Amino acid sequence: MFETDERRLARWERRGEWPLTGLAVLFVVVYAWQVLDNRSTAGLDVVLEAVLWIIWLIFAVDYVARFKLAVDKRRFFATHLFDLLAVLLPMVRQLRVLRLITVLKVLNKRFAGRFRQQVGVYAAGVTVLVGLCASLAVLDAERHHPDASITTFGDAAWWTLTTISTVGYGDRYPVTWEGRLVAALLMIGGIALLGVITGTIASWLVERLSGVEDSVAEAEQATAAELRLVRAELAELREELRAARTRSGG
Amino acid sequence: MFETDERRLARWERRGEWPLTGLAVLFVVVYAWQVLDNRSTAGLDVVLEAVLWIIWLIFAVDYVARFKLAVDKRRFFATHLFDLLAVLLPMVRQLRVLRLITVLKVLNKRFAGRFRQQVGVYAAGVTVLVGLCASLAVLDAERHHPDASITTFGDAAWWTLTTISTVGYGDRYPVTWEGRLVAALLMIGGIALLGVITGTIASWLVERLSGVEDSVAEAEQATAAELRLVRAELAELREELRAARTRSGG
Amino acid sequence: MFETDERRLARWERRGEWPLTGLAVLFVVVYAWQVLDNRSTAGLDVVLEAVLWIIWLIFAVDYVARFKLAVDKRRFFATHLFDLLAVLLPMVRQLRVLRLITVLKVLNKRFAGRFRQQVGVYAAGVTVLVGLCASLAVLDAERHHPDASITTFGDAAWWTLTTISTVGYGDRYPVTWEGRLVAALLMIGGIALLGVITGTIASWLVERLSGVEDSVAEAEQATAAELRLVRAELAELREELRAARTRSGG
Amino acid sequence: MFETDERRLARWERRGEWPLTGLAVLFVVVYAWQVLDNRSTAGLDVVLEAVLWIIWLIFAVDYVARFKLAVDKRRFFATHLFDLLAVLLPMVRQLRVLRLITVLKVLNKRFAGRFRQQVGVYAAGVTVLVGLCASLAVLDAERHHPDASITTFGDAAWWTLTTISTVGYGDRYPVTWEGRLVAALLMIGGIALLGVITGTIASWLVERLSGVEDSVAEAEQATAAELRLVRAELAELREELRAARTRSGG
Repeated sequence: MFETDERRLARWERRGEWPLTGLAVLFVVVYAWQVLDNRSTAGLDVVLEAVLWIIWLIFAVDYVARFKLAVDKRRFFATHLFDLLAVLLPMVRQLRVLRLITVLKVLNKRFAGRFRQQVGVYAAGVTVLVGLCASLAVLDAERHHPDASITTFGDAAWWTLTTISTVGYGDRYPVTWEGRLVAALLMIGGIALLGVITGTIASWLVERLSGVEDSVAEAEQATAAELRLVRAELAELREELRAARTRSGG
Repeated sequence: MFETDERRLARWERRGEWPLTGLAVLFVVVYAWQVLDNRSTAGLDVVLEAVLWIIWLIFAVDYVARFKLAVDKRRFFATHLFDLLAVLLPMVRQLRVLRLITVLKVLNKRFAGRFRQQVGVYAAGVTVLVGLCASLAVLDAERHHPDASITTFGDAAWWTLTTISTVGYGDRYPVTWEGRLVAALLMIGGIALLGVITGTIASWLVERLSGVEDSVAEAEQATAAELRLVRAELAELREELRAARTRSGG
Repeated sequence: MFETDERRLARWERRGEWPLTGLAVLFVVVYAWQVLDNRSTAGLDVVLEAVLWIIWLIFAVDYVARFKLAVDKRRFFATHLFDLLAVLLPMVRQLRVLRLITVLKVLNKRFAGRFRQQVGVYAAGVTVLVGLCASLAVLDAERHHPDASITTFGDAAWWTLTTISTVGYGDRYPVTWEGRLVAALLMIGGIALLGVITGTIASWLVERLSGVEDSVAEAEQATAAELRLVRAELAELREELRAARTRSGG
Repeated sequence: MFETDERRLARWERRGEWPLTGLAVLFVVVYAWQVLDNRSTAGLDVVLEAVLWIIWLIFAVDYVARFKLAVDKRRFFATHLFDLLAVLLPMVRQLRVLRLITVLKVLNKRFAGRFRQQVGVYAAGVTVLVGLCASLAVLDAERHHPDASITTFGDAAWWTLTTISTVGYGDRYPVTWEGRLVAALLMIGGIALLGVITGTIASWLVERLSGVEDSVAEAEQATAAELRLVRAELAELREELRAARTRSGG
């Protein structure tokens, strides 16, 4: 019974992987449509908004289902706190922009499963994905503010680039607090990106320049060679002993 | 006598830990109140200012008491130089803003004791704490300057974010020298934060990619296996020797 | 037959090294002339443009020839994807600016062959080369735009510097999308540069401060000493055994 | 004869250490006076300028003397190329600002000798020194330009801070090419500073988190313990052999 439930959670998560990834991609596409299409009619807007909320609802249902299937509910709650936040935050109307986080979490999970081995590919992919979502979100937040300097997708993409690279010319910057929230998340992403790139290069250099592994390998070879000599010595000793015994016994 | 005094210092510090942490939190709250409450009457202002000075005084008394209890006073002076600065600097009227450093020192100590193991949690916590204090301090310093671009807490928080991430759009920046002092401390903090994040990622990658530990472990297993063979050889040799002795002695 | 073709590819690449490097340098010089010479006549402009396209054509021919010579064409295609992009992208009229990437690839290859050992020299050289090309490209892209803030080579070089160091004052910034494309590549370069410098210093510090190698060396010396003792013990044992045998046999 | 000359160079350098450090400090002080004192008369200006040139001349004479004393002149020339540049560059009138590099080289040498062990103290000291010199140099270069935004020492120090931390608000930036040259050197310094800080933290974290040394130490202890067992085994074996010999010989 206990075992069965854990297995049911795992089976649920395995089966849900592809549909959720598909929904996440659909979410980004619909959100991009909603943000980028200026000439959309009121009717279309309602449809797009409805699709976004339905997808979000499916993510919420998925969280609830996984919580129900988890045997150790307290542990599931503690280890999936970020999942809960990603589901609850977009409910607050002002944090609508954060719906993309739910989506990013799902996409990142699939992406991580495939590419974490190649740190470079993974970092590049995540950066492009985060950059795209941030551009859409900041454009959505800023566009209708009278003092906004980010009013087209081109502006938003350029602003995203200058922010994530921590260059920050200041020719464009968010003025609404929703836009600044996106900026905050993007800056954290930019710093982490910098950390991953630097870390990858540093770890590669550490390995290559300091040659720790080579040193250990050489040391080990020396020890192994010495030990082989000891064993040869022992074998000879045994041979001599056998000869002595044969003679003494003969 | 000598031993007793060292113990008395340790006991003083242990007993003072919680009250001082509480006072530090109270200080930040009162300071935030003073800075953020624009409609406060002159009477309230005097009370808040008095509370801040009393808390600072308690920190000063704590330093003096610890100095008195220390056996090797010269060594205490040298190793607690930063404590002394944190107590003395706020006495200069123009460096009032630096009173928050005294507080940050106490809070950091408690925080470090709890979270230094998890570098990520510790870095995040310190960043939020430093960011909050810097926002209050820069708002306090800038607000009444005619050319100031930082006049609300929202502006101050946004400026803190763009500064600590080293993005620096330049849409808001301090113009008073007190504000610039806060900026200088924040930039140093930002660089250190970047260093900690990069360092954490780099150390994780070094460990994971270069596989030094695995290499050492493998090498060690090889050596251990070789040594087991040597001992087996020795055991057999001894067995043969015993057999030879038995026969020869029989 | 199979072996021969691989050898023919290698011979082609070896023979092509110097001419291609020469052409790459010539390309940069002609491009710089075209961009910097404001008083050039229409006739000269056509000649310079023709030279650039001829050099690009030679690079394209080189790619095709190498593809033809490769035995495992699928593997060549996969491992030389960036070469293909560097050849195809400049064909799109709007991406003319990217022709410099073809050139940078060739120069970087020669440079890397010579200096990759000294990471510092290599990083400095690549930075100067990339900076020079980016300055020319951004000037070419921006100069004729009415809102441009980058209109002279001095401006372009200064902008390149503030961007690659991620300082980003914002006194000058590209406004055309071609200029922003150059900026994007430069920012990626700047982040990588930061990573290389930080990584080099970090790896040097890791080596120097943590003293892993010393520790391994010391451990190895201790093991070696212990092993020498074991062998000495064994030699003495053998000596005694020989003595015993001699006596017993005598 | 050969040995003597090398020794004479070493003695020259040892004897020159303190006087040159003193002159370097004097240079910075006089330069600061010249830059910061706006009300100085023409006569005083001539005196200050003369003192600066005399000090520079002594550095030049020192280089020539060391070159003369060096046995392997070609090798001295190659390894002291930066010294030569630091001496020659200030001769060009437009590069006057670079005279401070000569001085920074001397001060850095003394500083490095003392504090390189403590990377943190060394980095902090060099940063303050470079920042001070850069502030003076940029103020000297910018002050009299009509479009200058850096016109007081406070502005210059603030600009230095925003540049070396790579924040770059863009509220102040150099407009003369001499000022931009100082900015370029400062940015390189800022990137290196970031690298040193990140590297120090990373190396500390690598050491602490990955625990390579502990792992090696533990592995070594295990090997040593195993080897002690082997020796004990051997000793027992020898004892038994001796006993056998005694009995057989008895």
